[in-house]
Amino acid sequence: MYSQRSSWLYVAPSSHFSLANIPFGIISTSANATLRPAVAIGEYVLDLKAFSQGNGFSGDLNIREILGDSFQQCNLNAFAALGRPFHRKVRAYLQEILATDTKYPQLLKNNTNLREMAILRLADVTNHVPMAIGDYTDFYAGKHHAYNVGALFRGPSNALQPNYTHLPVAYHGRASSIVVSGTSIRRPWGQVVLDPVAEPKIPSFTPSQKLDFELELGMFVCSSNQLGHPIPVSKADDYIFGYVLLNDWSARDVQAWEYVPLGPFTAKNLGSSISPWIVLADALEEYKTRGIENRTSYAQYLEQPVEVKEKSVLRVDLEVELISASGNKSIISRSSTRYMMWSWAQMITHHTVTGCNLRTGDFLGSGTISGPNEGTEGSMLEQTQDGKSNIMIGGDEARQFLEDGDTVIIRGVAGKDGALVGFGEVAGMIKPAVPKSTFY
Amino acid sequence: MYSQRSSWLYVAPSSHFSLANIPFGIISTSANATLRPAVAIGEYVLDLKAFSQGNGFSGDLNIREILGDSFQQCNLNAFAALGRPFHRKVRAYLQEILATDTKYPQLLKNNTNLREMAILRLADVTNHVPMAIGDYTDFYAGKHHAYNVGALFRGPSNALQPNYTHLPVAYHGRASSIVVSGTSIRRPWGQVVLDPVAEPKIPSFTPSQKLDFELELGMFVCSSNQLGHPIPVSKADDYIFGYVLLNDWSARDVQAWEYVPLGPFTAKNLGSSISPWIVLADALEEYKTRGIENRTSYAQYLEQPVEVKEKSVLRVDLEVELISASGNKSIISRSSTRYMMWSWAQMITHHTVTGCNLRTGDFLGSGTISGPNEGTEGSMLEQTQDGKSNIMIGGDEARQFLEDGDTVIIRGVAGKDGALVGFGEVAGMIKPAVPKSTFY
Repeated sequence: MYSQRSSWLYVAPSSHFSLANIPFGIISTSANATLRPAVAIGEYVLDLKAFSQGNGFSGDLNIREILGDSFQQCNLNAFAALGRPFHRKVRAYLQEILATDTKYPQLLKNNTNLREMAILRLADVTNHVPMAIGDYTDFYAGKHHAYNVGALFRGPSNALQPNYTHLPVAYHGRASSIVVSGTSIRRPWGQVVLDPVAEPKIPSFTPSQKLDFELELGMFVCSSNQLGHPIPVSKADDYIFGYVLLNDWSARDVQAWEYVPLGPFTAKNLGSSISPWIVLADALEEYKTRGIENRTSYAQYLEQPVEVKEKSVLRVDLEVELISASGNKSIISRSSTRYMMWSWAQMITHHTVTGCNLRTGDFLGSGTISGPNEGTEGSMLEQTQDGKSNIMIGGDEARQFLEDGDTVIIRGVAGKDGALVGFGEVAGMIKPAVPKSTFY
Repeated sequence: MYSQRSSWLYVAPSSHFSLANIPFGIISTSANATLRPAVAIGEYVLDLKAFSQGNGFSGDLNIREILGDSFQQCNLNAFAALGRPFHRKVRAYLQEILATDTKYPQLLKNNTNLREMAILRLADVTNHVPMAIGDYTDFYAGKHHAYNVGALFRGPSNALQPNYTHLPVAYHGRASSIVVSGTSIRRPWGQVVLDPVAEPKIPSFTPSQKLDFELELGMFVCSSNQLGHPIPVSKADDYIFGYVLLNDWSARDVQAWEYVPLGPFTAKNLGSSISPWIVLADALEEYKTRGIENRTSYAQYLEQPVEVKEKSVLRVDLEVELISASGNKSIISRSSTRYMMWSWAQMITHHTVTGCNLRTGDFLGSGTISGPNEGTEGSMLEQTQDGKSNIMIGGDEARQFLEDGDTVIIRGVAGKDGALVGFGEVAGMIKPAVPKSTFY
């Protein structure tokens, strides 16, 4: 277990980026604007472009050969496409390089020149969206969320649609507006029905008054299947590169008016924020547990063996912090990735059931992950019952939905202090809507 | 008018690719597998990579300079990104090069070497998806289709949702499964409720029994806007690169079960076929007319001046041919792109209203375009009333939906013989479903 090893770089016990993690991202610096791969370790990053150019992979010539120039790229797609068994090897090799008792002290630990080139302070790097994302699909696997929202709009007895327990419901999202943590989000304009009772319904054109976050886990795909050839559920785990936190910003008032009959569109494509460091699938292998039970006898193509079901979802603790423009702050929700009813393998298989081809770099969202209790909701819509109650921040500021200047921060972490496998955070601040004159 | 000019290359009067057209595509040949840009003219193509390398653009040094290496690329994105005024210039230049009375006979017409290099037979080239498509969005602007389908499932009085005349309804589609004409489509497996009356609804896992085509026009985007900054409707036409025919294959039985509450997903991502040659926006400028009238007083950001409304949609005649495995064939539908209720500019603006960023290469579908009368339906769902009546092919074969071995061909053309501006066709054949064992 790497939890037993320490790094020659200082890693605080509370760091999400322990030696047990080794998450991959894309960085640039003020001194070098080139986008390049890196891994995070404690308060540092290892620049993988500099490391590989400085012969850092010469400890394993097989790895060096297979890597080729994948760490000279501006995204992680080439590396991801090399496959899960290889990611595992590279991660283990980097853990070895960074361990106090490394077998290869001459390659980096005692190589002052390369350390100066390749070790950067985390605080000094700029993160970028780490993959070239072909398509983005958002699932709806958080059953408590689906139930809460359904109950709000259709009542508790019709909360879940009849298909919900038979298949992982999902819709195609917008890849272009996926942004990295730290990017501000503009309050959107849109068509909103302000009086939901009056008939006929007449929409107003207004900045959204129900801007919300969604607490999700996101997954990057590392392989591809041919169009027309579904991925069996037994093979689906091989398509998982790794995970990030996802905040799928949503304009609830826009969504309510636009979404029939084809689903959410402009209510969702205004932006989706992700945490910058991809935690590899293998880094989370030991943090798995049972998901929400599904008693429906669903189709066999989605069925997984009992021993797999026991470890069908990740056990990552999630929290949402809300910070107002005046600096008040509160943790407004605590949830867990365990509150999913479908496994990632089931979602991958269902995605391809009619023949859809996945490609390396595709991004899948879990859907909003709410827990079963008060204070575990993954959206303000649920927590305020569509604005009927307040969320308090710092004791004296009340929110029904997000206000201009609010910052939402999602954090996620697994494991124990000293060996945490965490995501860091995804943060985004709400900027005021553009002036109406923009449209004319 | 280019309709007055002829080309020194033979162009049959019935050719969709007259000198008045000059559509752009991406080709390869058995002799040269490199993907490269080309334009179609009659039964020929002009290889633009060979033409530019052979100094073909030396007649206009300004064009040559701005072009740079955009015709050395494997897709048309770089060329598209140069903007509509420039596309117009390049198209006019190529018309000049190809005209019988060309000002530049020495560049190609009388340049035997370059002609041998750059002029290929259309029958000898393989076409490819011409753009690197970032995101695909499918609209629902064909009002007759929306009405027909709504009436089928909700009755005539509730056929159109209340939002339909206020905004261009759309959903995000799947970019990875967009394929070029000629690619076969596998009959998909999926979850289907075979007995729609029984409660509770229990889905069966089966090859789709309601596989359908959708007759659409597709549009490629040639510019980008910044996230958070909507495109005003007055500027939206600048984002249109050109058009192709689109067949958005749909598994109706899968769709009926999966689509609540987030819209179509696996029923649509099994494949979408496009015609290979992009007809530039400017080639169709003179084929514009009024769309379907919308008497709703919709939001001002979608409002266009009266003179623009008079020319808000294209006037392209569409037809659908169905050919069975045994060779029987019939034109089963004739429609027109005029049967749209929203203009492309309105769709672009609405797409970005909440701040979504479009990128060069993005692809937008019109939605199914049905006419008002029998025989003008853009899908079998409408024409057979969800399988309740037959479509006859060649007099003695009956169809409710597509059968294995069926080929669907969509054609579209504007203008008059000798100066046609057409799309050629998008064709696709249905292959049998993969064996069930694929899933296990």
